[in-house]
Amino acid sequence: MAEKNKKNDQKVLDAITPKSTDISKWYTDVVLKARLADYSPVKGCMIIRPYGYSIWEGVQRVLDAEFKRTGHENAYFPIFIPESFLTKEAEHVEGFAPEVAWVTQGGKEKLEERLAIRPTSEAIIGHMYAKWVESYRDLPILINQWANVVRWEKVTRPFLRTTEFLWQEGHTAHRTHEEAMEEVMRMLEVYRNFAENTLALPVVTGEKSQKEKFAGALNTYTIEALMPDGQALQSGTSHDLGQNFSKAFNIQFLDSDSERKLAWTTSWGMSTRIIGAIIMLHGDDRGLRLPPKIAPMQAVIIPIIYKEAEPVLSKANQISERLKSRGIRVHTDARDTYKPGWKYAEYEMMGVPLRIEIGQKDLEKGQICLVRRDTQEKMFIPDAELESKVDFLMNDIQQNLYNQALEIRKSKTFKASTFAEFMSVVKENSGMADVSWCGKPSCEERFKSEAGATIRCLQNEPAFSKCVVCGEEAKHRIYVARAY
Amino acid sequence: MAEKNKKNDQKVLDAITPKSTDISKWYTDVVLKARLADYSPVKGCMIIRPYGYSIWEGVQRVLDAEFKRTGHENAYFPIFIPESFLTKEAEHVEGFAPEVAWVTQGGKEKLEERLAIRPTSEAIIGHMYAKWVESYRDLPILINQWANVVRWEKVTRPFLRTTEFLWQEGHTAHRTHEEAMEEVMRMLEVYRNFAENTLALPVVTGEKSQKEKFAGALNTYTIEALMPDGQALQSGTSHDLGQNFSKAFNIQFLDSDSERKLAWTTSWGMSTRIIGAIIMLHGDDRGLRLPPKIAPMQAVIIPIIYKEAEPVLSKANQISERLKSRGIRVHTDARDTYKPGWKYAEYEMMGVPLRIEIGQKDLEKGQICLVRRDTQEKMFIPDAELESKVDFLMNDIQQNLYNQALEIRKSKTFKASTFAEFMSVVKENSGMADVSWCGKPSCEERFKSEAGATIRCLQNEPAFSKCVVCGEEAKHRIYVARAY
Repeated sequence: MAEKNKKNDQKVLDAITPKSTDISKWYTDVVLKARLADYSPVKGCMIIRPYGYSIWEGVQRVLDAEFKRTGHENAYFPIFIPESFLTKEAEHVEGFAPEVAWVTQGGKEKLEERLAIRPTSEAIIGHMYAKWVESYRDLPILINQWANVVRWEKVTRPFLRTTEFLWQEGHTAHRTHEEAMEEVMRMLEVYRNFAENTLALPVVTGEKSQKEKFAGALNTYTIEALMPDGQALQSGTSHDLGQNFSKAFNIQFLDSDSERKLAWTTSWGMSTRIIGAIIMLHGDDRGLRLPPKIAPMQAVIIPIIYKEAEPVLSKANQISERLKSRGIRVHTDARDTYKPGWKYAEYEMMGVPLRIEIGQKDLEKGQICLVRRDTQEKMFIPDAELESKVDFLMNDIQQNLYNQALEIRKSKTFKASTFAEFMSVVKENSGMADVSWCGKPSCEERFKSEAGATIRCLQNEPAFSKCVVCGEEAKHRIYVARAY
Repeated sequence: MAEKNKKNDQKVLDAITPKSTDISKWYTDVVLKARLADYSPVKGCMIIRPYGYSIWEGVQRVLDAEFKRTGHENAYFPIFIPESFLTKEAEHVEGFAPEVAWVTQGGKEKLEERLAIRPTSEAIIGHMYAKWVESYRDLPILINQWANVVRWEKVTRPFLRTTEFLWQEGHTAHRTHEEAMEEVMRMLEVYRNFAENTLALPVVTGEKSQKEKFAGALNTYTIEALMPDGQALQSGTSHDLGQNFSKAFNIQFLDSDSERKLAWTTSWGMSTRIIGAIIMLHGDDRGLRLPPKIAPMQAVIIPIIYKEAEPVLSKANQISERLKSRGIRVHTDARDTYKPGWKYAEYEMMGVPLRIEIGQKDLEKGQICLVRRDTQEKMFIPDAELESKVDFLMNDIQQNLYNQALEIRKSKTFKASTFAEFMSVVKENSGMADVSWCGKPSCEERFKSEAGATIRCLQNEPAFSKCVVCGEEAKHRIYVARAY
């Protein structure tokens, strides 16, 4: 067995592909070795393993509280959408039909009508809202759903793009377009705030182009994170659905002026994909680096035992209790089947923000050894300073990860005024281009055909040059990048 | 609009079918009028509306904490199970294939192999455990999943039996059968304790007969609640899967004696069906009656305003803060668009355990009016006694609902020693029969053919007579009843 254990230990200690060498290979290595996810025998579907799922539980905990704070309730709608429902909104079905998984048989019975596995739930929810809404007093309806969805994808990667994924989808109905737009922007802000302040992911926000909007929406608003390879990752979207779905599903209400009117609806979603952004943007050659606010384990205590175990274990336990009472999520790894060095590597791989080492020598000196995951900085502090130092480090690590990610975005975002400059930004520098655009689809098309890039969002700033493609008057200042 | 509002108000005030007149119709009325669920356009699928879903969130909160306390972690496995996986365990596929929904097409591509929408996840999880387990040190694996599942049902009823439902499924793998059995019994006890102490549902527990066990298990253990109409409701099950799935999926480990062995696995689940039991067992002619421990709203405050609003609203707010600070889930309904009487009926329908009325007169007298949902008892208490009285009532209402439900079970459970007595218990008294059985399938079959009943579970008590069917020596004392 000694031989076998050594082999197991080696597996984790094996160096992963350096991030700078091949970020794509590095990403897969981290996902598998940190046991975030695993490949499944079903094409394009992943298993979210307990450690990965505990990050998702953190996302759910924080977002769900935000949704409730902003007046939303959770509900659950069927996973099946009859084909005739999906086709009621023309743009919607055109956008989603190519990636729908279809149920055609139930038990021994061949179905008369195919059932789509929800790729998103506007259709089934629109149908129910039409049933529930009678008067303006029934509005707004503010419902969110935590659910699985399926989109039949050709090329998949764990978290970033999978055939089945977990998400939340908010669906609301309002009396006026103004109210609906307030909701759209409120939820975009919830996403931005969550990404930046909880996940330490700096994002740019703005409206999508008509080509890139959600199928069936009037307009889509997005938060976009920029990855270290210069590719953007759409991380959360909020849609102004106008009256498109109200028309398709007849969501009418009797207004206070006794007229029957169509409701204005919105939808918004964030998915397990966001975990891909956390891995990709914060990780380093040693593995994950998790922001303290989302880390399932914020600190790990590793007792270092050479001779007498009891005093060291007792101290480790005391430290654990002191931190737990401050609300720190702390784990003690006192297993004697693994060496300290092996454990250091393991918890670094898992991205635990802070490591606490405690040994006989530390006891004698009345000190505690702390090691930051983000900088690898090692420090010895007096026992009495534990609480204040850990509080400080949790904030400082959170802020440092954000700053580093922001630095990456800044160093990868370049203004361009000519198409040659644009090409150099996206193709040579692998960056995100900050450019001006006339608004014509034909110019938008060239970002794709020439550079494989798309408009990530319109900025809230005026254009600063002529259109970077055609040289005519520009209407919008935009971000353009390749994307995951 | 006045006319319209009156009509809306009337809808809720309309008497529901009395429970004693037609419990089935009463059940549907309560589900719809308390807005727990609604019918969907997809056959057999329901919408869980926000109020119903908030009860499910309560179930999740309590059970999830119990699972974690007992060492389990959450994960997520794909909803799709390739047909070839489902067929690996012979009994399993035989049991589930007739009720599987099949995906045969993804986007425009016709699938080479059909994908089952999980009716349960033993197959896909067994496959992954085989991949993850190498040595005895990797055991036990203790994983739970919160997920949706689909079983193609012919006759459905909201919560009690739906084509798609939400549940949790625990899946564990162990080194020995003894350890696995400890897990099976531990989780059965978690379910029993949760049903009785959180949901106030008294249950009987025991092993299933071989005919009634989970398809693919060695043995199934169950908690069974008895409904007021004398039908049993299987409310949670825990399965000893033996090595059946380990064989089918090759879950092998290298033991400390250097031999390769098959793991022993278990699975256990509880679903949204449990909400049906809460409705059915506790409800009365006015609607739901929720046990305080699971009620999303434990108390509702209704300010009664005739002249000056401010002092009453301010008092209502003070009461709310006082109760919130004690951890009571309290809601204040200060809407001036509905009359107090309408609100009373609405929150009674919703089963809120305690109503708190506060008006000008109460202010003057320094009193607060409390009304229990379970007994309709109305009491006036001095302001200073609010906290202690509410604490008392929360416990007392919880206990009273349990006692009443236990009384129902006792009054519906009858011992029978002859088949004639058995028939009279099940058919004439609509009750559950406590009988002795020889163990032969042919005798078990007669419960079904003669009375439409099934063995709900084997008791942990010795038989007290000859077999109630054939009169031969009895092996087991059992409960027999019709079932939902």
